[in-house]
Order: sequence, then structure tokens, then C-alpha cells
Amino acid sequence: MNDPLAHVRALFDLDDDVVYLDGNSLGAPPRAVAERMAHVVRHQWGRRLIRGWSEGWWEAPQRVGDRIGRLVGAAPGQVVVADSTSVNLFKALMAAARGSDRAEIVVDAGTFPTDGYLARSVAELTGLALRSAPPDRLELTERTAVVLLNHVDYRTGRLLDMAALTERAHAVGAKVVWDLCHSVGVLPIELDALGVDLAVGCTYKFLNGGPGSPAFLYVPTAAQPSFEQPLTGWNGHREPFAMAEDYRPDPGVARARVGTPDILSLLALDAALDVWDGVALADVRAKGLALTAHFMALVEDLSGIEVITPRDEWRGHQVSLRHPEARRLTGELADRQVIGDHRPPDVLRFGFAPLYNTFDETERAATTLAKLL
Amino acid sequence: MNDPLAHVRALFDLDDDVVYLDGNSLGAPPRAVAERMAHVVRHQWGRRLIRGWSEGWWEAPQRVGDRIGRLVGAAPGQVVVADSTSVNLFKALMAAARGSDRAEIVVDAGTFPTDGYLARSVAELTGLALRSAPPDRLELTERTAVVLLNHVDYRTGRLLDMAALTERAHAVGAKVVWDLCHSVGVLPIELDALGVDLAVGCTYKFLNGGPGSPAFLYVPTAAQPSFEQPLTGWNGHREPFAMAEDYRPDPGVARARVGTPDILSLLALDAALDVWDGVALADVRAKGLALTAHFMALVEDLSGIEVITPRDEWRGHQVSLRHPEARRLTGELADRQVIGDHRPPDVLRFGFAPLYNTFDETERAATTLAKLL
Repeated sequence: MNDPLAHVRALFDLDDDVVYLDGNSLGAPPRAVAERMAHVVRHQWGRRLIRGWSEGWWEAPQRVGDRIGRLVGAAPGQVVVADSTSVNLFKALMAAARGSDRAEIVVDAGTFPTDGYLARSVAELTGLALRSAPPDRLELTERTAVVLLNHVDYRTGRLLDMAALTERAHAVGAKVVWDLCHSVGVLPIELDALGVDLAVGCTYKFLNGGPGSPAFLYVPTAAQPSFEQPLTGWNGHREPFAMAEDYRPDPGVARARVGTPDILSLLALDAALDVWDGVALADVRAKGLALTAHFMALVEDLSGIEVITPRDEWRGHQVSLRHPEARRLTGELADRQVIGDHRPPDVLRFGFAPLYNTFDETERAATTLAKLL
Repeated sequence: MNDPLAHVRALFDLDDDVVYLDGNSLGAPPRAVAERMAHVVRHQWGRRLIRGWSEGWWEAPQRVGDRIGRLVGAAPGQVVVADSTSVNLFKALMAAARGSDRAEIVVDAGTFPTDGYLARSVAELTGLALRSAPPDRLELTERTAVVLLNHVDYRTGRLLDMAALTERAHAVGAKVVWDLCHSVGVLPIELDALGVDLAVGCTYKFLNGGPGSPAFLYVPTAAQPSFEQPLTGWNGHREPFAMAEDYRPDPGVARARVGTPDILSLLALDAALDVWDGVALADVRAKGLALTAHFMALVEDLSGIEVITPRDEWRGHQVSLRHPEARRLTGELADRQVIGDHRPPDVLRFGFAPLYNTFDETERAATTLAKLL
């Protein structure tokens, strides 16, 4: 099969005997990262010491944020890389819900657990109700302050229609917060064009930033003046080095920053993003659909297997299979160098990262699974 | 002068022509960090991929937390390394203030700005009043829910009496949260023995964890069952991989975790902490007092200089000088390879890190400053 991304795999440090299909959980390391890390430690931290802060470190959350902005359809100055996805969800939901004269927060019922936990916490702090609803029956009304949606369901791989759902939220005057953890880096996203209110996402899955690399938060320019969140750390201050007694937020996206940014992880992510140079998301999307379609076709008739990922285009770049022995199978596949993961109780997940996964690997994975069954 | 720590400097990657007196802002890199980082990226992330999470990464926040616990007098299982100091302050203050039937939060008036900003935010969320007071006139009463104190004042270097102030807070039934940013790693701290309620601190100053390395939070065992904080991320869940719909916090200190830990930065800090092997905090404290005393004696009579750091033992390991041209002098010192920092409007700060700073450097810094004046 023609693969316009075939040359990108060489940019990753992956063993050829491993079929790594868990990039939707932890992306593989781009080769440039290890050397960049050593450089940052030895030459920036070691030689420049405190001066590093005025030589690029301080602005790194916004600079790297802009690089991610290009992958999610956000013009510069609207994305900041900082903290974890969970912390960014808290900021986003608090900013959207606090002070609202509406009654409820709505979350996608298939939401990744942390999204639901944070939404519950924000509901308690703001006095709003929390309602969980399936994405095809959200029932948004003028009581709805904000709806939090996962662009791709982490269990099934189902992809939501961001354009339609954003429009539906706006039609009743509700705000929408999108969680892009499982979609950033696998398909074209148009946050600005769709008028999305707020979005968060992680960088250690399909962006390959490294284990636990810092997450990102999108606050569109028009929403920045009213974006108020309670984690009022000094990095979000308008004049952080004035050491003023009162908190006055930065006028721009930096108001979404909290504490001192984690420079080693942030610059590892920065290095990891270099693999995107010259890569078109349309090619990534096309290859991801092809890889997942190929895999589904190879495994759908295997004994005891139920494919729960949508067959149509409304899927991300993972294939989820239901099998009563999912846990055992995941372990036995790993013993045979085919690495996916298991989500309880009975789901096997296989992520397909078009930047490094190949059609050959897809076949090796399917063949290995077939032998085990 | 006899220096039992003289051999430790060789563990740091520092240029000998630089007099680095800003370790109270960003510690110098231990030599082991660059290599460890490359190892973590190439051999853990690169070869083990997702399996790294079950081979030490998941528990790293508590494991590294216990290493810091040994430096602050905390028995194992009470310190977690996660997030930034600002985020940890939010967790600590929310846990201490929320649900209290008392009326106010009190902060040390010389507090580092972020502490005051977060205390203000927590006061607004909980409906408590916020009162700022000098540490020698805190006027704690039975109206006081919680008092937040900086162990060492970042501007003057004044050290507070943790034992006496903790006792005073407890005498009126208030809780005390200590910010250890400028004291951890420079003097013996006895959190358990003093019955401190909660404490936070940073790891990139005298613990040399690297720019923006993750901070720590101390929650004593007895306080863990009632420690409830609103950043209910999935890492704090009792069974994080059950992906349960409801948040049930971990019974132990892991309930202070939020999102996925930043492994690259966390393991850089882990490597940096190796320099403490065989080091006694009593020696560190003695050398720090000697270095700062020596420096104060050398500069106190210089024209236009006012020493604002306490001369008695109630100081941390920094010397702060007031001079109307503080900003210019800091720049000119840096041009001459003597690196301190400036805090507006008129303070020059010099941090003395006993693990790598020497008496010779102290004299070179004082001589250079004298020449500039």
C-alpha cells in the first residue's frame, strides 16, 4: 500500500521486533529526544544556569503551545502547555462554570474517568448540578452552562462530530469544552474555525512527548479576557517578576499558566514535535483509517472477538476488541512482542500511530492474535 | 576553614570560573542527571515503552517523595512529588480550609506572591476571609482556620521558628501549612516531630531537581483520611485502573496526586537527589551559616549596602543586600561571572548552597561586588 509517511518511522527509536500498538496510551520516543535532553541539561541548565529562564525557558509554554496549535487549528497565542490534563480540565471547567447563572454541567457518559471526577468536583465548588449523558442524547438546554466532551472515546475509539456538537451547544447558549487526548495528532482539528470555547489535551499519546509530558489548554483569544480560573499561580500574573501583592492575570493565554513550567519535560516535548515537520494531518488521518480498517478486517471473524470500534469514519486511530479473556490475551500478546493494552473488564485496545506504525505490523499483530485464539 | 562537604562539589557540573550564588532560585545540575535522562529516554521509554508504567514509573511520585521525606523529617508514605508548588498550595489550602466552621485564612505578610494569590483564591472559593499579617504579629485566634507560613522569607532570608509557630497555631485549634521552598535542603526540618499539618515545597532550588522540576506535598498519615482536595484526577483514585465512574480517593498520600506524573522531570529529580547520599543536614546547615556569615562580614561595610538578612541564626542560606542600584549591580556582577539575582525594587540576593559553594567563591563574590562599588 502506498504510504506517504513511511519515511517518518526512521525518526523514532523503536525496536523492529516489537509491534507497538499502544501509542494511544504512550507514544514512542522520537530519536531526537534523548540527545536534546542531554543538551538541555548540560548546555542550557549546566552552562547558563538561572540565565536559561531569560533565554527561552520562560516563554516555552506558549512557544510549544503554538506548535501544538498548528495541529489543532488554533492560531498563535491561544494554546499553553502546562500541568496535567486533569489540572487543565479543572481550570477550563471552573472558568466555564463559575459565575454562570445556569444550572448544570453535562459530561459525555463514556468520558475518561478523570474528566468525570473533575467535573463532579467543579460542580460541587460552583453549586451546579452534574449530569452524565450519552453523546447522542445530550439533551442540552438553556439550563446547561457547559458540556464536556471527549473527542474520541478512550474505550471504543468512537469519534464525535465536533462541528455538530459544538453548534448544538452554542444553539442553547452553552459552552463546550473538548478533551482532545485521543484525537490530537491523528486527525485534522479546527478549533478556531468551529468556535470551540475551550479545549484540553495530552501530549504523551499521539504527540509522543514522553511519559506524563505536560498537557495543553486552548483558550481562544476572544475568551481570554473573561477566562478566570482559581489556580492563580505567579506564572499567570501579568507581571510575574514584579512580585506584586495582588494577582492580576496576564491579558493573554499566559493567564492559564500556574506554577513554574517543567522545563525538562517541556523541551523533551518540543524535540518530539519536530517529527511533524512536513507532515500533513490529512495524510496521517488517511493512513490511520487505512491501518485500522485493515486490522479490523483481519480480526473481525476471529473466534470470540467482537469489534466495538465504529466501522465508519467516526473512529479515532484505535481498534477496540471485546473478548472475555481480554486481560490474559493482552499479556500473551505482549509476551510475543505485540503490545496493546487492556481496559477492564473485557476490552483489548490497539492504537495505530501513522507516524511509525506500518501495514506489515498490522498484519503481524492480527496474525499473532489469531494464533492465540 | 574545615569543610566536611568539600568533596560533594565534584558531583556537580559547574564551571569553575563561575561563582554561582543563585541556587536558591535554580540549583546547579548534579553530573548524574544528563546521563540518567538519556538512559530513561533510551532504555526505559524507548525499550520498555508502555511497560515502564508497571516497572517503577507509576509509584515514582511516592518513592521520590519518601527520599525528600528523609530531608524534612517525614516518615515514609507522607510525601508525594507532583505538580507545581502553586498547585500543591491550592490542594493544601483547600483541604485545610474547606468545610471549616472558622472564619479566616491567615498568611505571612512577607509571603512569596504565589502563596498569597492562591490563598486569596481559596478564600474566595470557601467563603473565608483572608488576612495578611507579619509573622511576629500573626494574632491567631479561634476564628483562624488555617495559617500559611513561608519557612524562609524569599526576600530577606529570615527564617521562622517552625516549632513555636506551629505550637501557637495549634494552641488556638488552627491548622498550619508550611511553605518550605527556601528551606528544604539547607537545614534540618522535623515535620513529623512538630506535628505540622501540611507542607509544600519546591525541588528546583536547594534540591537541584532542574528548572521547574515537580514540587512536593506533605500530608501526615493521621491527616490523610480527611485530606480532601478538589483536583480529583485519576492518579489520586484508590483504583486508578478500574476506570470507575465515581472518585474514591486513595487511602494514603497518593490521594494528593492528580494527573499522570511527569516522569522525565521526576526521574531527573530522582537522579539529582543522589548527591545527598551520606550527607548530614547538620553539616549542610553549619556550612551554610558559615558561608553566609563570612559573606555578610565581607560586604556589610561596603558603600551604599544594607544587609537585610538577619545576623543571628534565624536566617536561611541566602544573603540579601539592599542597594538603590540593585538591578544594575546584579547585571554587572553577572558580567563578571558572579551570579546572584535581583528582587524588585532594590534587593540583591545571593544564595549559598553548601553542597557546591565554597568559601573561596564567597570571597570572590564579595571582592567583585566591592570593586563595582
